[in-house]
Amino acid sequence: MKLYGAPMPAPNPRRVRMFLAELGVDVPETPVDLRKREHKSPEYREKNSLGQIPTLELDDGSTLSESVAICRYFQALHPEPALFGGTAFETAQVDMWIRRVEFIVMTPVGNFWRHAHPFTAPLLTQFKDFGESNREAYAGAQRWLDRELAAGSFIAGETFSMADICALSTVDFASWIGLPIAPEHTRLTDWHARVSARPSALA
Amino acid sequence: MKLYGAPMPAPNPRRVRMFLAELGVDVPETPVDLRKREHKSPEYREKNSLGQIPTLELDDGSTLSESVAICRYFQALHPEPALFGGTAFETAQVDMWIRRVEFIVMTPVGNFWRHAHPFTAPLLTQFKDFGESNREAYAGAQRWLDRELAAGSFIAGETFSMADICALSTVDFASWIGLPIAPEHTRLTDWHARVSARPSALA
Repeated sequence: MKLYGAPMPAPNPRRVRMFLAELGVDVPETPVDLRKREHKSPEYREKNSLGQIPTLELDDGSTLSESVAICRYFQALHPEPALFGGTAFETAQVDMWIRRVEFIVMTPVGNFWRHAHPFTAPLLTQFKDFGESNREAYAGAQRWLDRELAAGSFIAGETFSMADICALSTVDFASWIGLPIAPEHTRLTDWHARVSARPSALA
Repeated sequence: MKLYGAPMPAPNPRRVRMFLAELGVDVPETPVDLRKREHKSPEYREKNSLGQIPTLELDDGSTLSESVAICRYFQALHPEPALFGGTAFETAQVDMWIRRVEFIVMTPVGNFWRHAHPFTAPLLTQFKDFGESNREAYAGAQRWLDRELAAGSFIAGETFSMADICALSTVDFASWIGLPIAPEHTRLTDWHARVSARPSALA
């Protein structure tokens, strides 16, 4: 089995590394050089037609992409600890929170990166006004998430889950591109410290 | 159990109705009047802080939102037919395809609706140039999906799955807002006819 990825700050390969560290499963990462655009090469696109990382390649040559789908596969092979929830309702709740993190929190961060950040400007056509508007959208997402965290220590309640991994990779990527957590969001700040203190956060 | 939703063209409640019809499970929908902005009322936000539909309310008052998470919950209660995949790898593949449909196909449709469509103009600040640019992004998504459909009759391969439900709701919503399937995409057109012919598509 081969896991294609890239080091920090790339947020999506980090999710898989962190998930594997939580499971205690060792799958070394095969690096894809993003600066050399290796992820857009014909060879890599054979494995993932979208040219994105991470991608998991099984020994029979079949491939799987999308960070959360790859983690779901490893969870099925290694059921404990249950990071996608235990009961039917908990599993659905974790899925709901993964989706909320991606649509509400990650979307404005991605839009800012794509349309307002100087790093991507030479690579893509940017709509700067739209891109800049995502600062406020992400500020709103932080306010919402900070309120929601009144319900528990972790994103999906009192248990650490895949939703925390998705949120940590998002919030840290956002900080790296210039969108830090606003200090008035004390619950979000505390959550960030709590999750960052896990050894898996360094994976 | 109460399922809050709204009729067509709202794409996300339709996914749950179609999924339930495929399972043969009858859960009547409690309508939320979007034109009266009932989904943004304080009462509804008690059930879903994001003010979105659908939301499922269990008899103990606990709630679940996000179309795919709600369907995942119903699948756990009614395992057959397995619309989220069978084996560990198939399950991960269906999840990958759900995510690809949402990030690659639904995102430009949503951006066009949000930033370029006259219907939303009075409700929200639009970035029109950005919104219009999503016509080409959606055209690219159609080209990509049409190529991918060479691998099988359905989105995730040879078996109908939740990924088809997500894709149908997206493509039909796109057509409704003025972004039809381009006729040169014959595989995508055939897939659309195949999935639309299922009785569940009328749910």
